[in-house]
This record gives sequence, C-alpha cells and structure tokens, in this order.
Amino acid sequence: MTAPTTDILAIGNAIVDVIAHAEDDFLVAESIHKGAMNLIDEPRADHLYAAMGPATIISGGSAANTAVGAAMLGARTRFIGKVKTDETGRIFTHDIRAVGVAFDTAPATDGPATARSFIFVTPDGERTMNTYLGACQNLTSADIDEATVAACGITYLEGYLWDPPAAKEAFVKAATVAHAAGRRVALTLSDSFCVDRYRAEFLGLMRRRLVDIVFANESELHALYQTADFATAVAAFQADDVLGVCTRSEKGSIVVTRGGVLEAKAFPIERIADTTGAGDLFAAGFLTGLARGESHKACAMLGAMAAAEIIQHVGARPETNLKDMATQAGLF
Amino acid sequence: MTAPTTDILAIGNAIVDVIAHAEDDFLVAESIHKGAMNLIDEPRADHLYAAMGPATIISGGSAANTAVGAAMLGARTRFIGKVKTDETGRIFTHDIRAVGVAFDTAPATDGPATARSFIFVTPDGERTMNTYLGACQNLTSADIDEATVAACGITYLEGYLWDPPAAKEAFVKAATVAHAAGRRVALTLSDSFCVDRYRAEFLGLMRRRLVDIVFANESELHALYQTADFATAVAAFQADDVLGVCTRSEKGSIVVTRGGVLEAKAFPIERIADTTGAGDLFAAGFLTGLARGESHKACAMLGAMAAAEIIQHVGARPETNLKDMATQAGLF
Repeated sequence: MTAPTTDILAIGNAIVDVIAHAEDDFLVAESIHKGAMNLIDEPRADHLYAAMGPATIISGGSAANTAVGAAMLGARTRFIGKVKTDETGRIFTHDIRAVGVAFDTAPATDGPATARSFIFVTPDGERTMNTYLGACQNLTSADIDEATVAACGITYLEGYLWDPPAAKEAFVKAATVAHAAGRRVALTLSDSFCVDRYRAEFLGLMRRRLVDIVFANESELHALYQTADFATAVAAFQADDVLGVCTRSEKGSIVVTRGGVLEAKAFPIERIADTTGAGDLFAAGFLTGLARGESHKACAMLGAMAAAEIIQHVGARPETNLKDMATQAGLF
Repeated sequence: MTAPTTDILAIGNAIVDVIAHAEDDFLVAESIHKGAMNLIDEPRADHLYAAMGPATIISGGSAANTAVGAAMLGARTRFIGKVKTDETGRIFTHDIRAVGVAFDTAPATDGPATARSFIFVTPDGERTMNTYLGACQNLTSADIDEATVAACGITYLEGYLWDPPAAKEAFVKAATVAHAAGRRVALTLSDSFCVDRYRAEFLGLMRRRLVDIVFANESELHALYQTADFATAVAAFQADDVLGVCTRSEKGSIVVTRGGVLEAKAFPIERIADTTGAGDLFAAGFLTGLARGESHKACAMLGAMAAAEIIQHVGARPETNLKDMATQAGLF
C-alpha cells in the first residue's frame, strides 16, 4: 500500500445555502419540520424563497463543508459532487476551490439547476433546512474515478447521498474501491430523518464492513438503534464495532470503540448564532486529526474546536483561520 | 401640495455584493486602492473573483442599502435601479422586496449582467470595493416615472449614479420632478474618488439648488472643497447653504445648516467587523428621522444607530430588527 496523496476525499451533495432569519411561527405556518433537513421540489423552493426574508448566500453541502474545514486545517482534501453549469454552480465551485479543496467533478450541462438549501435560522440559533437537490441527482458512479479514490487516505461519505437515487451506487463504488486500496471509509448519518429513511441500509453498510468510521449526533444515534435510551444506543454502537463518534452539542462528544467509550468536552463559545454545519465541521476536525495520526481524544478536541467556530456565525463555512485557532488552543 | 404616499425614494446602482476577507498584501499585489470604490470591467471582475477567497453573497448597492434600512425602520420606501433578468438580478430583487421596499424598475432582458461588487474586508474591518456596473449602465430617464417621484417626500440619489453615463440624466430628471412637486432632494457624495471625478457637477447640483440635503463623510468633504482642513471644509459646506450632514466614524457626525453646526455622537459598538454600508445606513436613519419630522439631532442619532448595526457584521444589509433597536435606544 502506497502512502496516500490526498488525506480526505469527501463525497456529497453539492449545495449552495440561502440563509435567512425566521421566527418559529413561520416554520409552523409553512409546516416545516424544525431542525431537520426537509427535501423539497422546485415549486416548493420557489414558494419558500418568495416567502423568505432577505438572504445571505454561502456555499454549503454537508460533506463539502467538511472538506472545506479539513482543507483550512491543512489536510490535503478533495471533493466529489455534482453541480450544473449555472451561476449557483459557479459559486459553489469557486468557494470550495478557493480554500484549496481539489474539485473537478464534471458539471451537468443540462437538467435541473444546482442544488440550493433554503435555511431558516430561528432566534435560538437552530437551523432548519429545505433542500432542492436539483443537479445532485445526476451524480453517478461514473463520477467516481477509481485511481483517485485509491489515492485518498480516508473517503468520507454523507448519509444524505442516499436521497438522490443514483448517488448511492457512487457511494458504494467509492467505499469498495477505497477498501480494496487498503484505505479507511467514514460515514456521517447526516440527519435523524435521513436515518429513519435508510436505517437498514446504514446498518448494513456498518455490518458489512463497508464503512469503518461513523459520525452521528445523539438524535441520529437514537434513530439508528430505535431507542430513547442513550446508554442503550451507545452499547449498540459499540457492538457494531466501528470507530463511532457521537456529538452531543454542549455536552461534548464521545468516541466509541470495541475497547471502550472516551469522552471529550465541547469547546467554549461566546454565543450561538447559527448551528448550520456544526456536525460537518466536527467531522472536519476529527478527520484531520486522524489524518495527522492524532489520538482519538485529540481528534475529538479538534472537531469540537471547528464546530465551535462555525456555530458562532451565520453559514457553514469557517470565517476564522482554523489553523491559527488550533495553534492558539494548543491542538496543533 | 398633497401629502406624500411614499416617504423615501432611493435611486442608485442595483448591485449584489460578493464579500471575502483579504490581507492588505493582497490589495497591494492587485493594485487595488484600499477603502475606495474601484470601477472594474468584466475581465477584471473575472480575475478578481478567481483570486478571491470563499465569498458571502449579500445584496448591496449604496442607495439600495439605504432604502432597505429606512424600510426596516418603518419608512414607506421605494427604490429605482436597473438589474438584468439573471440569477444575480433575481437575488437583488428578492432581497429588497423582502423588507417591504417597493421596487418595480423594468429589468434589462439583454446586455451586460446584473452589477456585482467584489468587496475585500481587511483585518481592520475596512472594506474595499471593486464594482462591475453591468446592467446599471442601462438605467435611463425612461425609468423615472414622474407621478411616482412626485408622490415621494424625499428623493435620495447616490453620487455613484454619475458613473453610468445615462443615469445622470435619470438623476437630474428625478430631482427636477421632485422639486416641481415641492419635495426634498438628497444626495450622498458616495466616495472621495467619486467626488474627484465629478466635483464640479456635484457643487453645481448644490449651487443650482437641485439638491437640498447632502451627505458626506470627512474624506468626501475634504475632496469636495479640496482642502485638508476640516474647519475650512465645514465652513464651505455651510456657505453652500444646504442641509449638510458629515459622518466622522467614531467621532460621530455633524449637521451643518446656515444657522450653525450641530454635533452628534457615534453609537456605542462592541466590534468592527466590516464597515461596508456604514454611510448608507447612517443616511437610512437620518432620512427616516426627517420623514418622521424629528429634530436634526434625533435624525443624526438614528443614523448613528443604524450605522453601528451594520459595521458589526459582514454585509451592508441589517441583520437586526432596527425598529426594536431604536425603541430600546429610546430613539422611537
């Protein structure tokens, strides 16, 4: 096995976020499930945009956010995802390349527009997403180049890829190729409703050893094992024998292995402005730590730091120099 | 003279801002004049965007920002400016209408794209703009409906309108119609380099009594009267016998009339994140105060408050409920 030439390959939906503040009443009136990622079609996207207040437009996408965070922390990073050759696609492409992430998936020249997620941030800082997948539905296994995947130390996949039908084949191909090359494969469960939609498949990926590392937050872990008891969920996670990472907001995180459960604290913050991207940036820090050969504890601390940065401002792309932040926090 | 049905009509360049952080070294390497509004052509726009870090996209435009701030403060507000029927134009239109500003200028269906300003925010919070005017060059006097202007209490015009050649005719038409209807006309000098380009014309507008109210910051006032001495500039401003308003950053502002010079303090802030829009929002507060029949002192305090809001976050559109802020500050 040769040394990887890329540390982290992230594969996910290529999305640009359209973010506005909203009151809880608005979510109720529009029948939007608060805190979730709600999938929407084009007419619904047009309706929500028309009803939305003045918006800030910032590139997003779960795995893409992770790729950006990892690149900003110094990891050699690549992203695979599908945009269209439209203005929104150019914005996505510009922003991810601007931080040094390699991104050269061929854009779609026709078909639906580049994906947009209409995100409402309520006064409590919670984000509620309404995603029009658009061009993401054109990601297929043809977009997964075997030599490229084989050269990446960790292939990181988002659970949301199970939504666009052709993308799951791309997902399985990437994981298979990565393992054949002796590399590691990581999965984020993405969202508790996503877990509800694909529980059996996600558990199958873990139990067939197609993924080695699994990221979840508490509600996703509860959904995965269909239990309201956290200790029960953690025990089940441990029995599934992956490197399991569960984020717990202000309670920090736990790292679950066959050998035991390790706890790590949350990183101190001044305020919560917008929780969009918290899990994505935690994964960015954790995976960067793994790529650097750090201990699981150090990986979790780096994840907590990156998550703390992202929730203190609007948008899921870091505004702070994460390397400097890690140095100041004594993590690098 | 009938009562106005709209308090403030703002006429200006319709621009979407593309904002990124940059080091001072970058501005030097790209020969960009720091703190200024630099006009650029399309190839230069493409070059700067490619060289730019990950960006946040937020609607902008000087007079448009003022219109939005005034609407958020409760003024009945209208905007005239030219976009194209492209994605950027749809963003601009959505955002300005979303806060209740009436905006129905016919968009251009062909010709150059909707204007974008590539804004670099340096570590000191100073913003440096690079504006591709695009579709703004298609604003003409045909876009100025006489009955609409006549129904507005104050017509507010940005000095930047002197840049796209056809727009200055629109400017003069609007001012003439407003005065014929017994309304007031306000001008912002926009930028000291803009003043350098059009000094004689701006002084002519004042001395021909085509404008009644003039907004300037210190450097614009120095440029207008070609003096390095502030007291000399203020005396000249006073001699020109308009309602003159000069903003002075942390030193507050002064209101200059034939009768004297009134000083007002800056509004307390916690941090400067991005100065983009400070002057625009000062004007929003001041004009809203005038429309409410407040004293000049109260107008200046309302302006200072709105400016303080805008410089504490990225972008030139308010993120805070300005009405609530004014109530809490005892200004409403």
